[in-house]
Amino acid sequence: MAEDGAVVAHPVDPVSDEPTRLENIVRGAHAELARGWRLGLENNAVVELIAGAEAQDDCAVYRLGAIDLVVGSDYVRGPKFFLYEAGLLSEEDLGYYLAIANFSDVAAMGATPIGLLTVVRYPATMDDRTFASILAGIDAACHAVGAPSVGGDIGGAERLILSGTALGVTEAGRVLTRAGARVGDVLFVSSATGVAGAALQLFRKHGREKGLEHPAAADLLQAWTRPTARVDLGTALRSLDGVTSCQDTSDGLKATIESIALRSGVGFELDAASIPTAPAVTAVAGLLGVDALTLTLSDSPDFELLFTATAEAAAEVEAQLAAKGIEVFRIGRAVADGIRLVEPDGAGRPLPGEAWRHRTDLPTELR
Amino acid sequence: MAEDGAVVAHPVDPVSDEPTRLENIVRGAHAELARGWRLGLENNAVVELIAGAEAQDDCAVYRLGAIDLVVGSDYVRGPKFFLYEAGLLSEEDLGYYLAIANFSDVAAMGATPIGLLTVVRYPATMDDRTFASILAGIDAACHAVGAPSVGGDIGGAERLILSGTALGVTEAGRVLTRAGARVGDVLFVSSATGVAGAALQLFRKHGREKGLEHPAAADLLQAWTRPTARVDLGTALRSLDGVTSCQDTSDGLKATIESIALRSGVGFELDAASIPTAPAVTAVAGLLGVDALTLTLSDSPDFELLFTATAEAAAEVEAQLAAKGIEVFRIGRAVADGIRLVEPDGAGRPLPGEAWRHRTDLPTELR
Repeated sequence: MAEDGAVVAHPVDPVSDEPTRLENIVRGAHAELARGWRLGLENNAVVELIAGAEAQDDCAVYRLGAIDLVVGSDYVRGPKFFLYEAGLLSEEDLGYYLAIANFSDVAAMGATPIGLLTVVRYPATMDDRTFASILAGIDAACHAVGAPSVGGDIGGAERLILSGTALGVTEAGRVLTRAGARVGDVLFVSSATGVAGAALQLFRKHGREKGLEHPAAADLLQAWTRPTARVDLGTALRSLDGVTSCQDTSDGLKATIESIALRSGVGFELDAASIPTAPAVTAVAGLLGVDALTLTLSDSPDFELLFTATAEAAAEVEAQLAAKGIEVFRIGRAVADGIRLVEPDGAGRPLPGEAWRHRTDLPTELR
Repeated sequence: MAEDGAVVAHPVDPVSDEPTRLENIVRGAHAELARGWRLGLENNAVVELIAGAEAQDDCAVYRLGAIDLVVGSDYVRGPKFFLYEAGLLSEEDLGYYLAIANFSDVAAMGATPIGLLTVVRYPATMDDRTFASILAGIDAACHAVGAPSVGGDIGGAERLILSGTALGVTEAGRVLTRAGARVGDVLFVSSATGVAGAALQLFRKHGREKGLEHPAAADLLQAWTRPTARVDLGTALRSLDGVTSCQDTSDGLKATIESIALRSGVGFELDAASIPTAPAVTAVAGLLGVDALTLTLSDSPDFELLFTATAEAAAEVEAQLAAKGIEVFRIGRAVADGIRLVEPDGAGRPLPGEAWRHRTDLPTELR
């Protein structure tokens, strides 16, 4: 490593970003054993792996008789968590966020959460009250979602480390994946996005004190202190005919669109005017001198859902969701290839926004 | 925190060790929602939580129709992993260890592993080849156990962080727990223990170069580079009548005995002469000036199994296991209370050995 922190790697030992590693290393390493994996038990019950690491969905999927089990793990940044270090998130908030980030992966597959395991490792100086407040946050999020915290691992570490694993279930055959979108499908998003990312931008630009004076500060921080896993929507979608794909927006809206496009083998055309934007995001975009749509599409762990439905089913999906009090937004349609933003005047352009990447040029807390 | 690193906590904000936190904070935080938790699906399938965090077994247990699902998470120390930092473990070894440590928790419940999720976070400077070797180690361990690696989380962090979640299944009602031992039961262990702990002691005392010259070095390092999860034994035990409890020895033999005693509400009497000792452990004990039994009982992640069977079933259990080529050792019996070592001359004394604790007086790599 050079003095300035830049990576100096030998040409034969590249340092790839995270999506490249997922594609080139993780998938290959685990493909062989997973292919067609199944297990028969002495009582004739059978366990089948429906989708493993190679599917690159939010969770792996197993079939156990009449039930499909989904399970996924998510690590949450510890003390390098920028807003936590700035005193804007408490330990209880971190625990809450950890649980929701994991439950969101389950919700994105259309599954009902059945439990959470958490790894909470802490420095030797962390007192019982602080440790208990992390667990209280985890527990509050579990209550919000209705699924119990069932175990995990605690103990010492050099610094706070938080990781989790959420489990969920659907009726067999009802799991939603990233791979089902087809040309002509309608693309929906569940709410305005970019809020969590805008919060980071505000406090990075202004710091804690001045940031808190901003009129949108409370709305923005809410995305980090009390995020919502869209279990209501995910579980509704799995029961509706014609829903073809789903993913949460935890990597930002643009990256999520790209991910469904890649996994489904389609492109998307988005209507610029139909993409919902949050007033708080628009306000921060003004501060930064970027347009609101750019910030709305950029890297931001909002835990909303992006999903597709066939053109035939789209209106009925909207109606059924509305009957449950759930609003969704049509933002575009699947096309043969390419991802384009269509302006009201009909002009097309590439999607703006910074898609999520494991960018080594960013400070750690923003990766 | 004082200058010398000692914890200075206010009396009302104690800094408890890990077992105390498990007992006083973790159990309480998660008990309410977990109690009697169940979920009915639209196709009439039902998911029930059989044992959550409050049971404090290696894994949580769910019943999904004819199948019991067990799931547990284990964090593995990263660069503070002493033998790794000393150049005695490779990144591939760490990956292998991570997988086995997690599969062992499943095996200890009598379950057949069905998959593994891993969290692999790495510093920005780690090149693709090194990252791929961690995954190769994970994959090799999965092949050894016969269960696929199905996903997880990768990405950047300030340092190498490794955590995992293993899943396993049994026929409904066949899961083994720590809580079933009854007075009169026979206590078994699957092999000599203390090997992994002795390896740490050897290299801490002698350092890398001199340590490697020790005739037992290769045997000792094997416990870290290629540990074994006792899936063969765990899955055999779940099918045998009269097996009453089981736990892996990843916290050391003494701590494991204490744990089954506590959860089952019994005591144990151990026959000193019947506890198997490894020649490599005896050799290191000599170096350290302690007796071999002390080191055999001390903190050491060997991933062997400690289990109990009723006095009536014990001989048949041994015979059935022997028919599968699995040797086990009778080391004592469950009594009403207390844990005592009985010497060949009939004298009794407390168990020697350092039980596992989250001791803040120890360097992090030994906690």
